[in-house]
Amino acid sequence: MAPLATLYGRDVTFAAPYRPSPSAPSQALISWQERVEAPAASHFFAGLQQSTRLSARFTASDRRMPRERDVTPRVAEIDRVLEVNGAFLGASAKPAAAELIEPDGGALVDLLVPDSKAAEKESEARGLVQVKIGQIDLEWIHVVSEGWASPLKGFMRQAEYLQALHFNSLRMPNGLLANMSIPIVLAIDDEQKESIGNASSVTLVGPQGDMVAILSNIEIYKHNKEERIARTWGTTAPGLPYVDESITNAGNWLIGGDLEVLKRVKYNDGLDHYRLSPMELRAEFARRKADAVFAFQLRNPVHNGHALLMTDTRRRLLEMGYKNPILLLHPLGGFTKADDVPLEWRMRQHDEVLKAGVLDPETTVVAIFPSPMHYAGPTEVQWHAKARINAGANFYIVGRDPAGMGHPIEKRDLYDADHGKLVLSMAPGLERLNILPFRVAAYDKTKSKMAFFDPSRPQDFVFISGTKMRNFAKSGESPPDGFMCPGGWKVLVEYYQSKAKEATATSP
Amino acid sequence: MAPLATLYGRDVTFAAPYRPSPSAPSQALISWQERVEAPAASHFFAGLQQSTRLSARFTASDRRMPRERDVTPRVAEIDRVLEVNGAFLGASAKPAAAELIEPDGGALVDLLVPDSKAAEKESEARGLVQVKIGQIDLEWIHVVSEGWASPLKGFMRQAEYLQALHFNSLRMPNGLLANMSIPIVLAIDDEQKESIGNASSVTLVGPQGDMVAILSNIEIYKHNKEERIARTWGTTAPGLPYVDESITNAGNWLIGGDLEVLKRVKYNDGLDHYRLSPMELRAEFARRKADAVFAFQLRNPVHNGHALLMTDTRRRLLEMGYKNPILLLHPLGGFTKADDVPLEWRMRQHDEVLKAGVLDPETTVVAIFPSPMHYAGPTEVQWHAKARINAGANFYIVGRDPAGMGHPIEKRDLYDADHGKLVLSMAPGLERLNILPFRVAAYDKTKSKMAFFDPSRPQDFVFISGTKMRNFAKSGESPPDGFMCPGGWKVLVEYYQSKAKEATATSP
Repeated sequence: MAPLATLYGRDVTFAAPYRPSPSAPSQALISWQERVEAPAASHFFAGLQQSTRLSARFTASDRRMPRERDVTPRVAEIDRVLEVNGAFLGASAKPAAAELIEPDGGALVDLLVPDSKAAEKESEARGLVQVKIGQIDLEWIHVVSEGWASPLKGFMRQAEYLQALHFNSLRMPNGLLANMSIPIVLAIDDEQKESIGNASSVTLVGPQGDMVAILSNIEIYKHNKEERIARTWGTTAPGLPYVDESITNAGNWLIGGDLEVLKRVKYNDGLDHYRLSPMELRAEFARRKADAVFAFQLRNPVHNGHALLMTDTRRRLLEMGYKNPILLLHPLGGFTKADDVPLEWRMRQHDEVLKAGVLDPETTVVAIFPSPMHYAGPTEVQWHAKARINAGANFYIVGRDPAGMGHPIEKRDLYDADHGKLVLSMAPGLERLNILPFRVAAYDKTKSKMAFFDPSRPQDFVFISGTKMRNFAKSGESPPDGFMCPGGWKVLVEYYQSKAKEATATSP
Repeated sequence: MAPLATLYGRDVTFAAPYRPSPSAPSQALISWQERVEAPAASHFFAGLQQSTRLSARFTASDRRMPRERDVTPRVAEIDRVLEVNGAFLGASAKPAAAELIEPDGGALVDLLVPDSKAAEKESEARGLVQVKIGQIDLEWIHVVSEGWASPLKGFMRQAEYLQALHFNSLRMPNGLLANMSIPIVLAIDDEQKESIGNASSVTLVGPQGDMVAILSNIEIYKHNKEERIARTWGTTAPGLPYVDESITNAGNWLIGGDLEVLKRVKYNDGLDHYRLSPMELRAEFARRKADAVFAFQLRNPVHNGHALLMTDTRRRLLEMGYKNPILLLHPLGGFTKADDVPLEWRMRQHDEVLKAGVLDPETTVVAIFPSPMHYAGPTEVQWHAKARINAGANFYIVGRDPAGMGHPIEKRDLYDADHGKLVLSMAPGLERLNILPFRVAAYDKTKSKMAFFDPSRPQDFVFISGTKMRNFAKSGESPPDGFMCPGGWKVLVEYYQSKAKEATATSP
């Protein structure tokens, strides 16, 4: 029999074709029953627990921190391995056509009421107790309804909430873990709770007064704000932006249940065409015949250091044997803190970067990630990564101090700059995702451009912090040539100067 | 072929004997490849991930909250199931002889230097930098060295610390998760860090000045106290007993590494004979031919309500088909807060309870659990349960608000009374443990004894709180007849009156 694939540097011959169910892809039990090298075998098994289609990362001797040599097309030819208690039972070959990574739970959650039922559901909604929600609640409905949080199907009930708080993961009905680090919950106050009474469903009414969704099979439980904040942020210091905006003045109860969303959430801000759902993104990746998708989460303007990183990642993926890696440039579009650059300005800036050809539009998809921002560091970066799996990304780029910020009352960063990357690499439910740690880029004076920092000649590099950049833009001073494409820089200057003018106009 | 076992109500015939490695027990692939009912199958698989020997709990339609009908000897005959991606591949029969539940990681950690190496290690220890530790640190060395925290082999390095904080679990080298909810860490200050310099090993010196252990392959990392406290306790309010005792004034660095303990930790308080290691407990359970071990964690005196619960648990286990369930009555022996009854008085009280025959000495093992107490509620109850798996317990009794206490500065309990039980039932790495929720016992006036509360006649019951009990004992008043055995009650009266005398003697 001819070897079907190579595994651990050996040819593997398959025997005894095996099909778990009539609709499942054919698999093969192999005749080789020798124990494979233990550490590698256990990584296989760990991957298997979490995936129906193993990604290509499983040969790493330390699989938590993949390095380039760990991911090779040779090994990627093995698709599925049957192994129990460390014993290798069998494997199957990878399907000929590349497929996107599976969403958590196997199928994307889609909570939008289909057109055929819209009238019926709207009439049902009109008959229910109405619960008024805020802007951030609406953003979460957007997020959950499109399946970014798959397999979550609504606002969390207590069991899900506790799992998110304590374990950063949810046990799925099949017994496996899906990552879920951030509680996605809806707070109500005593009055709202009383008006709900014993109802089992309610209608959620948006900030504009329109009926947004039905929440059914509801469960109301205590909103212990202190515990929620402490376990999510690792601090209870006053001044956390999301807490101030959405928790401190919220009600003392949480209401969980299943969502049915009456119509697609739109913002009518001229940016809705960027708000692609995970399903739409997957369709786009398929249309482009992507065989790898790497996601870049950001909430800041793109400079040429970012661009270098993204271009270099594509180069590395091509070297690994991928034929068409696609970049998902994925700015966060929900709630952000007051001193972040607003979404509309960031989108204009990103547009310029693509227009200038700094990133190749052929291999880049720009879309908005509709989640609100927690600034919860290592806890939140897991959410950012997990949501991108659901959108089809199997590679995730992570930098220093992701989703971090300064401590609200102490003179230090809230999180250790390395914890985000470390926690992400160990997080339950993210085993299928390839984590690509950021390489640090800085301005190379000898080349007058952004380049990867070379520790052998530190004197040649200048680090341009966000604060430095902001000060350049505010004062109208130009940053070093090659720091950012001129069109993108112009947008920033315009933004900061308009802000400065506004401040002058409103100051007494 | 005769059916080997019954599974999901069907006879299962085995075919194609399969042995994963020469030393492994023989297994059998069965010929039946039909898909088994999905929810049940997935519970099987979830159990399989975490165990090499499935416990009997896996038939629960909601396996997280086992009810009596879920655990039946009929199903317990299936021992191991081979299943991948929801497809049932095979099963093996339970070994004829009952075996205790496996420790996390397969083998009990034992970090005591063997006698043959004692002299050599002691001489090595003399040559290393010395790091002075406190009483709670010593208690943790005791805990870790005996394998209560298996597979942990020393004080946590950063990767383990972060996993405990964020995920309440540790990824084992085989890719599976072990529960680990409490950071077991050693703090050092700037001066100690400096004295260690670039050394890779240090000697830990106990509060009495004696060399206790070598810590090797050390890693020093930042001790972010605020984050540690917030994520462990869900609050940063001042007044948490463990925090006050062991964190607030501790150093700003944590030092992780592998422990080698020079001699067994002893307290010389007349209670060391109660301090059985997990290995000794396992030997005792084996000697008694236990086929089920149910653990009862406590840090309070035992009243007849507790006794009723334990006796009733044994009855239920016998009904399930276990032949010899053994109770592990397991008071916590490490650090406790000032207003808890001290260990020596509690042990005298427990002795009286056994002497009075309230609990049957034949089927009860009384031993001390050497861990210090965190009072961290849902986070800590996982540690209490996990440690007992390592000691051989496969059933764990959990009550209202386990490991809870009053909020240190607000007038409420720190934790929701139900969260401990809920979190425990969902915790990663505890799938093998059968959780037995407490039934509430109260004093039944119609029967003049403690009985399970009957909600149909609430007027007949009196709840005797800890405070009420304390007040009875302090004032010398007797509690209702049948509340506690007279010998045990006498110990308590003696304790509280001696305490009152002490207070009077020292008051101005």
